[in-house]
Amino acid sequence: MTVENNYKGKYPLLSSIDSPQDLKVLSIDELLRLSTEMRNYIIDIVSVQQGHLGSNLGVIELTIALHYVYDTPREPLVWDVGHQAYAHKILTSRRELFPHLREKGGISGFPRIEESIYDSFGTGHSSTSISAVLGMAIADAEKNPTLSHIAVIGDASIASGMAWEAINHAGSSNANLLIVLNDNAMGIDPATGALSRHLISLSGGNSTGNIYKELGIEYHFLKDGHDLPALIDTLREMKNTTGVKILHTITTKGKGYPAAEEEQILYHYPGTFDRKTGHISHDTPTRYQDVVGSKLLELALDDDSVYALTPAMPTSSGLSHMMHTLPCRVIDTGIAESHTLTLAAGMATRGVKPFAVVYSTFLQRAYDQIVHDIALQNLPVRIMIDRAGLVGADGATHHGIFDIAYLLPLPNVTICSPMDAHELTMAVDYAYRWDKSPIAVRYPRGMARNSNYPHSIWKEGKGRILRQGSDICIISAGEIGLEVERAIDTLNDEEKSFISHYDLRFIKPIDTELLNNAFCKHRVIITIEEGILCGGVGSMIAMWGLENGHSDVKVERMGIKDFFPQWGSIEQLREDCGIDIHSITGRIRASILYICNMNKIN
Amino acid sequence: MTVENNYKGKYPLLSSIDSPQDLKVLSIDELLRLSTEMRNYIIDIVSVQQGHLGSNLGVIELTIALHYVYDTPREPLVWDVGHQAYAHKILTSRRELFPHLREKGGISGFPRIEESIYDSFGTGHSSTSISAVLGMAIADAEKNPTLSHIAVIGDASIASGMAWEAINHAGSSNANLLIVLNDNAMGIDPATGALSRHLISLSGGNSTGNIYKELGIEYHFLKDGHDLPALIDTLREMKNTTGVKILHTITTKGKGYPAAEEEQILYHYPGTFDRKTGHISHDTPTRYQDVVGSKLLELALDDDSVYALTPAMPTSSGLSHMMHTLPCRVIDTGIAESHTLTLAAGMATRGVKPFAVVYSTFLQRAYDQIVHDIALQNLPVRIMIDRAGLVGADGATHHGIFDIAYLLPLPNVTICSPMDAHELTMAVDYAYRWDKSPIAVRYPRGMARNSNYPHSIWKEGKGRILRQGSDICIISAGEIGLEVERAIDTLNDEEKSFISHYDLRFIKPIDTELLNNAFCKHRVIITIEEGILCGGVGSMIAMWGLENGHSDVKVERMGIKDFFPQWGSIEQLREDCGIDIHSITGRIRASILYICNMNKIN
Repeated sequence: MTVENNYKGKYPLLSSIDSPQDLKVLSIDELLRLSTEMRNYIIDIVSVQQGHLGSNLGVIELTIALHYVYDTPREPLVWDVGHQAYAHKILTSRRELFPHLREKGGISGFPRIEESIYDSFGTGHSSTSISAVLGMAIADAEKNPTLSHIAVIGDASIASGMAWEAINHAGSSNANLLIVLNDNAMGIDPATGALSRHLISLSGGNSTGNIYKELGIEYHFLKDGHDLPALIDTLREMKNTTGVKILHTITTKGKGYPAAEEEQILYHYPGTFDRKTGHISHDTPTRYQDVVGSKLLELALDDDSVYALTPAMPTSSGLSHMMHTLPCRVIDTGIAESHTLTLAAGMATRGVKPFAVVYSTFLQRAYDQIVHDIALQNLPVRIMIDRAGLVGADGATHHGIFDIAYLLPLPNVTICSPMDAHELTMAVDYAYRWDKSPIAVRYPRGMARNSNYPHSIWKEGKGRILRQGSDICIISAGEIGLEVERAIDTLNDEEKSFISHYDLRFIKPIDTELLNNAFCKHRVIITIEEGILCGGVGSMIAMWGLENGHSDVKVERMGIKDFFPQWGSIEQLREDCGIDIHSITGRIRASILYICNMNKIN
Repeated sequence: MTVENNYKGKYPLLSSIDSPQDLKVLSIDELLRLSTEMRNYIIDIVSVQQGHLGSNLGVIELTIALHYVYDTPREPLVWDVGHQAYAHKILTSRRELFPHLREKGGISGFPRIEESIYDSFGTGHSSTSISAVLGMAIADAEKNPTLSHIAVIGDASIASGMAWEAINHAGSSNANLLIVLNDNAMGIDPATGALSRHLISLSGGNSTGNIYKELGIEYHFLKDGHDLPALIDTLREMKNTTGVKILHTITTKGKGYPAAEEEQILYHYPGTFDRKTGHISHDTPTRYQDVVGSKLLELALDDDSVYALTPAMPTSSGLSHMMHTLPCRVIDTGIAESHTLTLAAGMATRGVKPFAVVYSTFLQRAYDQIVHDIALQNLPVRIMIDRAGLVGADGATHHGIFDIAYLLPLPNVTICSPMDAHELTMAVDYAYRWDKSPIAVRYPRGMARNSNYPHSIWKEGKGRILRQGSDICIISAGEIGLEVERAIDTLNDEEKSFISHYDLRFIKPIDTELLNNAFCKHRVIITIEEGILCGGVGSMIAMWGLENGHSDVKVERMGIKDFFPQWGSIEQLREDCGIDIHSITGRIRASILYICNMNKIN
C-alpha cells in the first residue's frame, strides 16, 4: 500500500501502531496525541471515501482505552451495529487499508469475522452485541472464568428488544461481561422512548432508581466518554471484578469536528465533504425515499387516518418533512421493528391506515409479526419496504435481497414492486386505497429514476406490457426493469424486434393473464429480479409455466444466486450478481441466437 | 347446541350470561358464585377436550373483573399468548360452543378476530399484546382520548424483547393504556431472567426501585389477583385516570384445582384427565421431542462442549431430563428467540457446540438473527426446528409450515428433514458432527414413529432410495414420508410396481445425484412436504428438473397451498391440506392412470 507513505508525516504516532500490542507501551500523553491523529485520519479518509463519520469520531478515546486495557482479541470486543468501528480497524492492523474503506476489494465499513481476528463478531444490524458477547462468555466460563467479554452499544441500540432480552438473560447469569453503553442520545436521528429519558435522568444524577441495577447489573457511570485517562482508569478498575457490568458513558457524535458536532444527523453519513470547511459537496438528488415521503405527506394531509411508522429511521426513510409538517402522524418507534409491525396491526384494527416504513433487511426482524399479526389476521397494514435489493457500500449485512422470498409464501399478502419513481408514487397511492388486506411495496435505495415508458393507472394484480416483440419476453420485477430498458436500448432494431418487456408491478398476486400472454407468444422467457433466486419471482413464474402446460417455453431466471453479495457500488454488485446491463444484453443475445438456431432446425 | 342443556343445572348463574352486559347487573356475591361456576365449567370441559388448564384457572377473577369494569369490546381487551382466554370466551357469547373447544369446526383455543367481536386481536405467540393495544390506543387517541385499551400479559411474556419495545414506546407516549401484568412466576416452565427476579422483589416490597416507574409508567400492585372485589375496586380506580398504567397482580396457575396448583408444569396442558381425581389418563408415549432430548443428553455427556438452548420451552422441547442431569448445559433464555439464536452464534465463535431448540413457528422471531448472525457469518450453530409442520389443535398461530420456505433462500444453511424417530437420532448426531456451517434439523410435534425401511448411515447431502419402481417417483421430505409409506402399503402389487419412494434427508443441499436418478428413471415425480408449497422443496425440485433438461418429466407438488390451515387433529389438517394418506393414494392412482394412457398412446 503506497497510500501509507503519504500519511506517514501527518500521522507519525499512528504510523507506528500495527496492533493493539503497540498501544500498551505508550504513555498517556502519547495516547492523547494518537487520538488526535486518529481523529484527523478518519476525517481525511471519510471525507473522500464516504462512510459513517459522527459515530466514529465519538468513540476514538473509547476504542483506544478498550484496546489499551483489555487483551483483544483473546478478550473479545464486539461493536454493536459496527458503523463506529473505524478507529478499531485502524488500530488492529488495517490502518494501511483504511483509505480503501468501503471500496470493492478494500475493507468493509463494518466489522467482519473474515476480515480480522480482532473482529470477534460481525455486525451491521443493531442490538446483537450483548447476545453475542454473552454467548462467548458462557462458552468461555468453564475454562477462563476471568476472561473479559466486551460489547459496546449505543443508547438507541440498547433500547431494542433483542438487547433487552440479552440484558435480561445476562442479569441473571454470572457471565463475565462488560457492556459499554456509549450514550450520545442519538441513533441516526435523536433517540426516542422511555429508556432514553431514563438514561438522561441517570446521566443527570436525578433518577430515583436505575433499571440496570434493578436487573442485577453492576452499574458504573463516567460523565465524559472522551476523557481518555478517566476511561482507562475506570476500565482498569472494572476489570478487577468479574460478573455482568455496565459502563454508562456520555460521548458526543462527531466529537472534534465542529460541523459534525453541530449537525449530527447530517454528518452521521455525510457522503463526500470538504475536509476544511465541512461543506458537503455532493448534490442531494431526490431519492426513492423522498418520493415515498412526499406521497405519504400528501396522503396524510388529505386523510387524517394516514400514519407513517418508522423504526428509528425518519431521516433515512424520507419522513423528516412529514414529521415536521404533521408531527403526530409520524411515529418513530425507535429501533423496534418487531413492535412496529404489530403496532401497525393494532392500528389497522381500529380503522386507521398505518404505513410501516422499514428497510428490507431490518424487516427480517419483524418476520413473525408479519406472519402472525398481519398476514394471518389479514389486516390492511401497508408495509413500505425501503432499500429493497442491493444497497451498495454497506454490504452484505444491509442488502435487501430476501424480502421477496420470505414474503411470497405468506397467504393474504399483496406485494408490489414498482419499476421507477413515478410508478412508486402510484404504488403508494394504490396501497393507500387498498384497504382489504396487507400490502407491501418494495423500492430500492438511492436516486429516484424514471423510465421512458408511459405510465398507466394501477389495477389490482395487473402488470403492464412495455414493449411487444416476437420471441423473447423479459419479465422484470421492480426497478431492475430500468436496467432491462437500458439494455434493450443498446440493441439494434433487428435484435429489438425479438424482445418483449413486461413489467410485473405485482409480485403477488401474480398477473396470470400477463403470464399466459408471455408463455403463449414467446419461446423464451427471461425473468429478472433484484433478489435471491431461490423462492423468488422467477421461480414462481417458471412454476406457473410448468403447471400450466408451457414446458416447451424456455425460462431463464436472472437474480441473485445462493451467496451473500458483499460491498461495492450498486453497479459493481449488480455485475457480481449477473444482473447488470451487460449481463442482460448478454443473456438477450444468447437467447436470440437460440431462437435463430431453433428457426434453422424447424 | 344441546350440550348447553346438560350444563344448565350445574351452572345456573353462568347459563344466564350471554355477554359481558349481563355481568354488570350482578352483585359481588353473584360474581363470586359465577367465578366458581366458571372454574368448574372449564375443568369439566378441558378434562375431556384437552387444552390449557393452569393458565385459564389463574385468570377467572381477572376476566370477570375486566369485563365488569370495562366496556368491551368498545374498550379493547387483548390477551397475550391467548391460551388463558377460556373464561373470556365463555363470558363473550361462546359459552355454549365451549364444549367444542379446539375441535375442527368448534371454537379455537386462542382469541381470533374472526371468531368474536370481543376478540379484539388474535394471539398465539407471546408478547404481542402491548404493541397491539398501544396501536389501538394511538389510533383512538384523537377521537376517544378517554377510551381504555387493555393488554393482559404474563410475567414470562412481558420479559420478551417485543414486549419491552412496546413498553419503551408506551412509556414515552400519552396513550390511554392499561397493562395487566398477570404474575404467576411461570411461563410453561418457571420464569427465568433478571426481570423475573425484579418482579419477585416488587411483589415482596423489598425492591429499591421499580423499572416500570423508571420508564414513566404509573404502577399499581395488587397482591391477590384472585380477590375479585379488590380487583374490581382497583380497576375502577385506575380507570379514572388516563395514561399508561400497569397493574401488577399475583395469581396462581391452576388456582382452585389442587392438582393443577401443585403440579403447574404438568397441568399447563395436561391432555385428558379424570376431573375428580386429577389423574392424567393418557399415556405419555415417546415424542420426537424426547428423541431429540435423549440424543442431546447422550452427546452432552460425552462432549462437554455441547449445549442445548431453549427459549422458555425446556419441558415441551424434551430437555427436562438433560436440564436435570447437566443443569449448566441447558440454557433457558426465557421467551427470547431473537437473543437465543445470536447467543448461539456467539457461543459458536468460541468453539462450543450450541443446539438451539426452537419451535418452527417461534423461529420466525429469530429470522434476522439466522440471516445476519448465523448464515452470513457461516457459524456452526445447530438449529433444532421443533414442531415443524402441522401442529394440530393449537391451530394457525402455531403451525410450523413456513420454515422450509424461509430458510431455503439463505446461503450456507444446511437443512435436514429426517423421516422418522430413528432417522431423527441420526440427524441430530450428524448435526453434532457437522461443524463447518449452520445446520437445521426439522421434526414434527407428537408421538415418535418409525418406518419399516432399514436405516443407513447419514452422508453429507445424500438422500436415500427406499423403494424403486418403474415410472412414478415419490420424493418426500421429512416425516410426511411415513404417510407415503403407509399409502404405498395400501396399493396392490401391480400398482406398487410403478412406484419409487425416495427420502431426501437433506432439503439443502439437495441431492442432485438422487434427483438425476429420479428424473432419468421416471415419467412422473410427485414431491411431498409438510410445509407451504411456495418456495418449498417441491418447487426447488421442479426448478432443478426444468433447468437440467427434464421438462418431459411431469412434476406434481404436494404440500400446503396458499392459505393458513386452522385447527383440528393433525390427521384432519393433513386432509384439509391434501397431504393425508388418501390424497397420496389418490395422487398415485391418478399418476398410474396417466402412465397407462401414455403407454397406450406410444
